[in-house]
Amino acid sequence: MKIRVYYEDTDVGGRVYHSKYLNYCERARSEIFFQEGKKPVYEDYHFVIRKLTAHYYAPAYFADILDVKTKITKLSRISVEIEQTIWREEEKIFALDITLVCLKGERPARFPDYFMELFRKLV
Amino acid sequence: MKIRVYYEDTDVGGRVYHSKYLNYCERARSEIFFQEGKKPVYEDYHFVIRKLTAHYYAPAYFADILDVKTKITKLSRISVEIEQTIWREEEKIFALDITLVCLKGERPARFPDYFMELFRKLV
Amino acid sequence: MKIRVYYEDTDVGGRVYHSKYLNYCERARSEIFFQEGKKPVYEDYHFVIRKLTAHYYAPAYFADILDVKTKITKLSRISVEIEQTIWREEEKIFALDITLVCLKGERPARFPDYFMELFRKLV
Amino acid sequence: MKIRVYYEDTDVGGRVYHSKYLNYCERARSEIFFQEGKKPVYEDYHFVIRKLTAHYYAPAYFADILDVKTKITKLSRISVEIEQTIWREEEKIFALDITLVCLKGERPARFPDYFMELFRKLV
Repeated sequence: MKIRVYYEDTDVGGRVYHSKYLNYCERARSEIFFQEGKKPVYEDYHFVIRKLTAHYYAPAYFADILDVKTKITKLSRISVEIEQTIWREEEKIFALDITLVCLKGERPARFPDYFMELFRKLV
Repeated sequence: MKIRVYYEDTDVGGRVYHSKYLNYCERARSEIFFQEGKKPVYEDYHFVIRKLTAHYYAPAYFADILDVKTKITKLSRISVEIEQTIWREEEKIFALDITLVCLKGERPARFPDYFMELFRKLV
Repeated sequence: MKIRVYYEDTDVGGRVYHSKYLNYCERARSEIFFQEGKKPVYEDYHFVIRKLTAHYYAPAYFADILDVKTKITKLSRISVEIEQTIWREEEKIFALDITLVCLKGERPARFPDYFMELFRKLV
Repeated sequence: MKIRVYYEDTDVGGRVYHSKYLNYCERARSEIFFQEGKKPVYEDYHFVIRKLTAHYYAPAYFADILDVKTKITKLSRISVEIEQTIWREEEKIFALDITLVCLKGERPARFPDYFMELFRKLV
């Protein structure tokens, strides 16, 4: 998934504000659902983040075009671990490891098949 | 209401990103409700913006402390016009005229007394 | 220019947060420069917003694909007035009239040819 | 440092958008400098994030008042590790471990005394 860096993403330091990389990764996760004709919500089921670890290797700048790559590194019925990396051409500038679980309303739930079918394609 | 400018509010140009002033004004409107022990939602009633006009007089910068002033310029049961100005000490840097109406769920509604009581204090 | 609505753009009311439409319009203005192999900054020249008026006709929702249309309605060497509209398929949901001027460093300036050449294509 | 949750911080799921907690923590870090009459930039020196790990324990909601606590867990001349936690009254809802280093312009640098003096108070 290609993402352009706009003014709103940068800060006075001239670089992309650090939390925006998480937004880029979330856009990429959502877009995977959209591309399959799905949404990242299903009936009362939705995702919640439990934990994430981010590494910042190099800054991104205004007007850059970035590429977000997404793959699943661990999958069960109750949690999914996803590795996402952001690239500017051949240079890896950011990496995210994120663990998501599922809620049904406010209560923990197993992933419904609607989500599992898509996850299995990304393993 | 005092607002501090943080990194997230600035852009690569070194100034506060233009749409952030609208956020500051929205915070100030919400805070008026909170200070009265209310919220800007009530049962199914909530606000929708119909129109706004913004004037940018001078830029704000990282670390600035800004002051948002809010007053109602026109009030009826179906719409409220609010004038908000943002100041850095004695200098007016931004002005917003905004017109809000009320929805109950997805349908237009008259403002409930819960909102009207608060509005009347701001006229 | 096509824009997808992601989680970050929505608020608890279930709709796109009102100031985000300004961001979408700014992305579209920047993208016009990028598509011509230019940037919306040139040497020390950059844009500043003087005034804007926004009309909200209908809300946008998570996962919507929006289309931003941009045209120049008035152009001189010292200011440019731009009309931008946001559409969801055949429905116009938002309109923006925005007036930009030029600064060279911190001082008002006439638009350099680098900007004027591009503007003339949009009139 | 107290932080109020406004509309702009929430998403359609009704909770605070996940990357906003990083913004809250960054505000708290900046505010520590401001409270000492300093800024988190000094001459050409500024901070860059190398790595962060975030744990999400419970969601925050619109109108919540949150408290951010900050302490330094490891300090040297070339990197600082900071632990920040976010609380809603007695409940810890979020924790961040973040590693910052220093750049002078674009090049790695040792923290100047201007930063070290403040850090030592937070150990």
